[in-house]
Amino acid sequence: MRSSSRGVVDAFIVMDVMEAARAAEATGRHIIHMEVGQPSTPAPAGARTALAQAMERDALGYTVTLGLPELRKGIARLYQSWYGIALDPGRIVVTAGSSAAFLLAFTALFDAGDRVALGEPGYPSYRQILRALSLTPVGIPTRVEDRYQPRPGDIPADIAGLIVASPANPSGTMLDRDALAALIGAAQAKGISFVSDEIYHGLHYEGRAVSALEISDDVYVINSFSKYFSMTGWRIGWMVVPEDHIRIVERLAQNMFICPPHASQVAALGALDCIDELEANRSVYAENRRLMLEGLPKAGFTKIAPPDGAFYIYADVSDLTEDSRAFAAEILDRAGVAVTPGLDFDPHRGGQTLRFSYARSTADIREGLARLAAFMGRHV
Amino acid sequence: MRSSSRGVVDAFIVMDVMEAARAAEATGRHIIHMEVGQPSTPAPAGARTALAQAMERDALGYTVTLGLPELRKGIARLYQSWYGIALDPGRIVVTAGSSAAFLLAFTALFDAGDRVALGEPGYPSYRQILRALSLTPVGIPTRVEDRYQPRPGDIPADIAGLIVASPANPSGTMLDRDALAALIGAAQAKGISFVSDEIYHGLHYEGRAVSALEISDDVYVINSFSKYFSMTGWRIGWMVVPEDHIRIVERLAQNMFICPPHASQVAALGALDCIDELEANRSVYAENRRLMLEGLPKAGFTKIAPPDGAFYIYADVSDLTEDSRAFAAEILDRAGVAVTPGLDFDPHRGGQTLRFSYARSTADIREGLARLAAFMGRHV
Repeated sequence: MRSSSRGVVDAFIVMDVMEAARAAEATGRHIIHMEVGQPSTPAPAGARTALAQAMERDALGYTVTLGLPELRKGIARLYQSWYGIALDPGRIVVTAGSSAAFLLAFTALFDAGDRVALGEPGYPSYRQILRALSLTPVGIPTRVEDRYQPRPGDIPADIAGLIVASPANPSGTMLDRDALAALIGAAQAKGISFVSDEIYHGLHYEGRAVSALEISDDVYVINSFSKYFSMTGWRIGWMVVPEDHIRIVERLAQNMFICPPHASQVAALGALDCIDELEANRSVYAENRRLMLEGLPKAGFTKIAPPDGAFYIYADVSDLTEDSRAFAAEILDRAGVAVTPGLDFDPHRGGQTLRFSYARSTADIREGLARLAAFMGRHV
Repeated sequence: MRSSSRGVVDAFIVMDVMEAARAAEATGRHIIHMEVGQPSTPAPAGARTALAQAMERDALGYTVTLGLPELRKGIARLYQSWYGIALDPGRIVVTAGSSAAFLLAFTALFDAGDRVALGEPGYPSYRQILRALSLTPVGIPTRVEDRYQPRPGDIPADIAGLIVASPANPSGTMLDRDALAALIGAAQAKGISFVSDEIYHGLHYEGRAVSALEISDDVYVINSFSKYFSMTGWRIGWMVVPEDHIRIVERLAQNMFICPPHASQVAALGALDCIDELEANRSVYAENRRLMLEGLPKAGFTKIAPPDGAFYIYADVSDLTEDSRAFAAEILDRAGVAVTPGLDFDPHRGGQTLRFSYARSTADIREGLARLAAFMGRHV
């Protein structure tokens, strides 16, 4: 059977790293996982209890397409608590993770052939989802002095949309209020739809992240229970859309998804009441980050992006290699530490960068840093 | 913010019926629900127990993109048990319901602008998902004497794909082996991709449904835990793809979905061992169907499609109305029975048809039929 041209998207290089790490573990080696983009913690206890109880009393059939009304209200309260924003729950669309939110947003906003801009480095699936929807991703090379975020002057003229993430993946960098407002203003002045990926909100270590909704209501904001709420595998997230887009997105979601997973919605509603447990998780990341910022430069990884949020550190290793893929393979093989080569995030310059994740336990981080230092001692 | 043209898809008329039924119930009226397309039973007990146990011992993070290996093996065993087919688990893609499977299939198979054929009446989301992906749905009007299924000679010349469902929604009709083989053969002879929606498999009452995989490996087959396994809200299904499409679909799914909901995968794995409970559910549908086949004609709904499977009966009411939407509203108002007008399923002829669902309890079916008979006695 023939296949489409838009179905031919790139593989993730990190998958090769994960497979190599798994293969090493299968031979009995102990590997420290700094390649993974998810917490090792489960959904908070209150989330799991809420679901266990619901399974006893409810058939958990389809919900309404936009999500359980109580969950939408709970998410609206989060905006009050996090940003001091009074958000209409009617503008909140509960989705099957941020993945479904991107599919809905791109479908609602863009027609086949439209060009959509995104910063490089960035989350690789933006590019691949755009391609799968017959859209053209347009990469904007960013600079470390701009925290690897696009400048308003970088926005191409002929695009229909701009995707921005703060905190970003892979860099962990954030846009401050002025920088975010400048980007939103520039996009709106050109009639460009602005999509703000805020999936790492809640995971900051100094100042908090600014939401695009603090600046404008005429934006799409995408978020998720995956990261701060430690619920990656539950595939539950949300999107906030402008008032006049609610019905468009609702009709699309009715057909494309019917509804988000009911069990995950129940668990997410429970998770909203587990802030103490989630803040305890965050304090682990904060300690891990402190150790990374101390240990990585000592090990020889000195050119790192400003590590504002999320649980990543992005390092320029151009003084060490031109081939981050081979370098990552060498680190795995000789140090027993799995790290991600930058090529997934930046097809042009990612051969000279690595992403280190500090989402796992502090003990793992200490051990990983010791191994990296020993490896680099031998390497340099 | 502007919106795309492809994002403008039709609303479901059944949603209006459901909202009117809810409003009637809010005023204290008792409504019998023959409009819903889902079981009233929960996921089987073994599915819920499996998840409750997994939540205690596992973080339930991302799974591999194609789904838990044990679940894929379990689904392969189902093909052995249901059809006597030895299916390679490597060809099985676990998805977030059949909805995600359609998004993946259409993206992997078709490019923007391609025309894709489907029978009318049919599941309305085929049409809307195609539109959302910048594809053009091409309706094939079908005949009751063909069980509302397309004939090989009906397939248009200029299409890239054909979607067929057996048992079908809204009609519940099935294609026998010869008829299905003739359609697959005709599609393959023309180089047309064949997508077989088998979501109602398992829910038959005389002969079993034939899978497209019994006829050819060069087809996409879509199925789900929603109907036979009574897990609609869990959003978990699967797709079987040709060997040479596995990697294409895997890369798309990595980017578009990351993985299906982990909790739902665990529950689905448990559900595969609950055949006794599921067969008990099916015996309820069988009794409901018997009552419907006896009661609907007595009530005056005499022109019904051959009710081979699923839990629907599709009635031609052209002798009673030209406006099924108003007629359904009248039945709800005067009889207290919610039914679905055919317009969602057949934009051209659905003004003269109704869909009755018998997925609820037998007591509800008895009461609903009594109300319909009383209403029609007054009406005729």
